[in-house]
Amino acid sequence: MAEFEQVFRKALSSKVGLLDRITHYLVRRKGKQLRPMLVFLSAKLHGTIGPTTHRGASFIEMIHTATLVHDDVVDDSYYRRGFLSLNALWKNKIAVLVGDYLLAKGQLLVTGAGEFQTLELVSEAVREMSEGELLQIEKARRLDIDEAVYYEIIRQKTASLITACCAVGASSVGAGEESIAWMKQLGYELGMAFQIKDDLFDYERINKTGKPSGIDIKEQKMTLPLIRALSEAGSADKRRLMRSIRSGNNDPGEVSKVLAFVWESGGVKYAEDVMNQHRAKASALLDPYGDHPAAEALRQLADFVVERDR
Amino acid sequence: MAEFEQVFRKALSSKVGLLDRITHYLVRRKGKQLRPMLVFLSAKLHGTIGPTTHRGASFIEMIHTATLVHDDVVDDSYYRRGFLSLNALWKNKIAVLVGDYLLAKGQLLVTGAGEFQTLELVSEAVREMSEGELLQIEKARRLDIDEAVYYEIIRQKTASLITACCAVGASSVGAGEESIAWMKQLGYELGMAFQIKDDLFDYERINKTGKPSGIDIKEQKMTLPLIRALSEAGSADKRRLMRSIRSGNNDPGEVSKVLAFVWESGGVKYAEDVMNQHRAKASALLDPYGDHPAAEALRQLADFVVERDR
Repeated sequence: MAEFEQVFRKALSSKVGLLDRITHYLVRRKGKQLRPMLVFLSAKLHGTIGPTTHRGASFIEMIHTATLVHDDVVDDSYYRRGFLSLNALWKNKIAVLVGDYLLAKGQLLVTGAGEFQTLELVSEAVREMSEGELLQIEKARRLDIDEAVYYEIIRQKTASLITACCAVGASSVGAGEESIAWMKQLGYELGMAFQIKDDLFDYERINKTGKPSGIDIKEQKMTLPLIRALSEAGSADKRRLMRSIRSGNNDPGEVSKVLAFVWESGGVKYAEDVMNQHRAKASALLDPYGDHPAAEALRQLADFVVERDR
Repeated sequence: MAEFEQVFRKALSSKVGLLDRITHYLVRRKGKQLRPMLVFLSAKLHGTIGPTTHRGASFIEMIHTATLVHDDVVDDSYYRRGFLSLNALWKNKIAVLVGDYLLAKGQLLVTGAGEFQTLELVSEAVREMSEGELLQIEKARRLDIDEAVYYEIIRQKTASLITACCAVGASSVGAGEESIAWMKQLGYELGMAFQIKDDLFDYERINKTGKPSGIDIKEQKMTLPLIRALSEAGSADKRRLMRSIRSGNNDPGEVSKVLAFVWESGGVKYAEDVMNQHRAKASALLDPYGDHPAAEALRQLADFVVERDR
């Protein structure tokens, strides 16, 4: 990962001073680096990590950083990973341009090296991510979305890039089409588990007040625990819940009611079960690799995905 | 161009309804389509227009559309080509995502067909465009930028993609490296002339009040006519001008003073001269192609670039 950080930093450099200061800031507030790790482990599982693997990992982390920077504009977020977001510090216009710059620089890194399989795998993910976010916006504030739509949204907006990580890693060391397809499946399972976990945080994680934040409910963002709770509720409960969700933006008491119902009706448990099924499928996909050290590490990574607390 | 529009529309399609409605809107408010035209003429000059040319033209128009959509966020513009901008209609978040979607879709169009030279030429331009915009922001509100910085900004933010048009067109019909380099030079000259013309509009074009708009002066955007006027002014005039520019945001009278000075000191004339030198260099680069119909059309296009009124 230390070597990766070198490649990553170098790939971001620019002769425009403003841009250099911003990318330096972005590197400092780096996150879990789950995606580059997945690229490296998927590569190791099929061969020897080389410069193609490093470029693939850097490209994907640049894409991921670009989408976070653009998400900050999209969500009007002023914090990200405990830091002020770029658009809080430098305004929307700069956040948009820095995101575009990162996308283009990442692309040049792999295009310049003629690594077109990486490029195709990642471009497909970028298209899916923006389409997934737009699908989510289209469905936003509709309280009647079902599980199938939810799965499609999270597959596109989150699992697609994690799928690309596993595929790019394998492809970077010359793995065959069959292995790449296998790794895509692994990435899909990990990505779905990852996003369901992210959405569970809203119901599970306790904030300073000692209660779950319920921010998704406040924003009428329909995620798996709530979708399940609603689909299982009788029609009277459903009407009552819908009313609470609609007034949750101004009334924390209504949010608490929804939170309680989601727990009591088993919505949280159901989402955890679905998440764990994805984790189990990911583990099963690693069985053919036996006790290969990279397979072991990927199993641990799958555990981390569902057990992490951030 | 009719065939192009088919390819372009098809490339934009999405199964997400919201996205389909937005891209339909984008196609309707299409602009001058200078860039696809340049791709086609550059192709025709070196061979027979084929599917690779069409994909290259669509890709570039998608990139151009994406940057306009992102520019709308960047500039907080609520109008574009006489239509409401996307972010006025659908908010910033959607504009950012639609831009990202267009970038990714364009890329997939050419990556899927294995057209990597197109991809490399265009990615380089995308990096330069975002870097150029950021350079402009970095220098914004500095009244002391010189011609060299101005040329660097417009080369990156405008000429780079027009350069890519000419190169992609030639490359799409199998032109050799030497021809591609020649066409890049042509694109550079056309692109520089194009942006200087755009910047001249602010001084030349009369709005409803019968006067030039002076909006760049109001926003303290330093373009060639004003940069030249300032560099030629004596120190007393310069101080007076700087004061006028700084108070122009609230006082239309001060803007008028600056406008008058820029005209009287020859700043407008100078910018027109520089623009025409670029046009002349573009024409000269077409000499070796004699009276080839595409060369004739490109000469007319060079004339249009400097003579257009929109």
